[in-house]
Amino acid sequence: MKKLHVIGLGLLGGSFSLAARRKFPELKVTGFDLSEKNQKDAEILGIITEAKEIPDSDTDIVLLATPADSLGELLANTLDQIGENTLVIDLGSTKAKLCAQIAEHPKRSQYLAGHPIAGTEYSGPKAAFADLLDGKVMILCEMEKTDLYLKEKAYQLFEALNMKLRFMDPEEHDRHLAFVSHLSHISSFMLGKTVLQKMADDRNIFDMAGSGFASTVRLAKSSPAMWAPILTENKENILAALDGYIANLSAVREKIAASDKESIHQELAEINQIRDILDLGKG
Amino acid sequence: MKKLHVIGLGLLGGSFSLAARRKFPELKVTGFDLSEKNQKDAEILGIITEAKEIPDSDTDIVLLATPADSLGELLANTLDQIGENTLVIDLGSTKAKLCAQIAEHPKRSQYLAGHPIAGTEYSGPKAAFADLLDGKVMILCEMEKTDLYLKEKAYQLFEALNMKLRFMDPEEHDRHLAFVSHLSHISSFMLGKTVLQKMADDRNIFDMAGSGFASTVRLAKSSPAMWAPILTENKENILAALDGYIANLSAVREKIAASDKESIHQELAEINQIRDILDLGKG
Repeated sequence: MKKLHVIGLGLLGGSFSLAARRKFPELKVTGFDLSEKNQKDAEILGIITEAKEIPDSDTDIVLLATPADSLGELLANTLDQIGENTLVIDLGSTKAKLCAQIAEHPKRSQYLAGHPIAGTEYSGPKAAFADLLDGKVMILCEMEKTDLYLKEKAYQLFEALNMKLRFMDPEEHDRHLAFVSHLSHISSFMLGKTVLQKMADDRNIFDMAGSGFASTVRLAKSSPAMWAPILTENKENILAALDGYIANLSAVREKIAASDKESIHQELAEINQIRDILDLGKG
Repeated sequence: MKKLHVIGLGLLGGSFSLAARRKFPELKVTGFDLSEKNQKDAEILGIITEAKEIPDSDTDIVLLATPADSLGELLANTLDQIGENTLVIDLGSTKAKLCAQIAEHPKRSQYLAGHPIAGTEYSGPKAAFADLLDGKVMILCEMEKTDLYLKEKAYQLFEALNMKLRFMDPEEHDRHLAFVSHLSHISSFMLGKTVLQKMADDRNIFDMAGSGFASTVRLAKSSPAMWAPILTENKENILAALDGYIANLSAVREKIAASDKESIHQELAEINQIRDILDLGKG
């Protein structure tokens, strides 16, 4: 691992670079961001060792860490530009559309579809930190379509960063993520919106917000530049998740309206089983 | 402050007692819980120094820390039982109905309506800890109806526990809390339910859940015994909050269905202002 190239120098691209540089002190990291400010910040913060739009032909890995809706064109263009020993990995939150778009590209075998389950509600190079990926899950799709030798480079990087690898097909990935990630973001954003609307005539409302509110609304701080594209890229799965969510909210609304305390109690108790499942996830 | 009596020896009642005992080492804490197991645990954990159903006549403060729908009857009965120098404080999450119920009680001046903005998703005496209340907001309602001398006892306790006092009328309290607390719990419970339903045909879904999901679904671990009553006690305000939330979810659903990325981006960016408001709240 001698040369890494990162396109998109925000939270995720920046954290990958910082973590890789810590593990491979000799590593050169070239990189590019459409935002001049991000590009400059990334140089100052040591995320890249050299600003560069096109990866050198001897680059080991190119990481694409830009918004989900930009990845199709960027991935095709990048594959056209790279040398024959370079692997391109995208880190996007949606996988099915991208994998379909790139299926017939002559350099398909030089591409690996990835999605690290890691992030914070902050964005940009200044939000990046080397420990973000440590111990986190890295989902990889369509592994069989990637060149064996190039895949080794990816393993080497992810192992050095202490990531846990998971494999699944792109459609399964998008279906799952709609429920365990995309829906959470929508519910949190809309919770934030609902309370902000209330605040318009009630300035002091946040005085009474406790840690429970802070926890459920945390994701409403997330970057619109990242999230608006995810919501439309994974539209079908998200609509299914959202419809289920709205139906559940409407159903409990009727129980509350009917003051049906026993039924509400029973329902909440059943949902409590998520305790065990979440605690299991920690193991 | 020589004698405290706590009815309801769970997370909140238990934490108040532990914190008070730390500050006033000579304090006697008598107390009672409907659950024999909780009562026993509370003795073992040092939450109470003596199990007792009716407070002694020389008790300084009685804390009522039972589910919201039990407080009306319990409060009236407790006021009937206490000596003339005892103050009764309830710690319930809803205030309007309770204050109205007790308005004409001959010992109304020996009652103070309180609501500490503090809790975790866990419950019971074993979840109690002395630091739970430290630095937290304590909302007090209808202060003018409480005896001046008895109020001093309350101030002494809350100051010793390093709580920040806020004053508001009970209706305002319930309106606000519906938005910044009760709605968060519903959104989290229903998010948990939606994902659990999906998991029924997809066992591995939680493998991919990141910290974002954990954060938004944390409150779904909360106690049904506490939350089912809150939802029906504060029904009118909660229905208003829930209707606003469902309307916002339905509106963003239509934008996603229409792939209206610009409009979604703009909306998420506007909601991002919650960053400043939440960070302000920390100051």
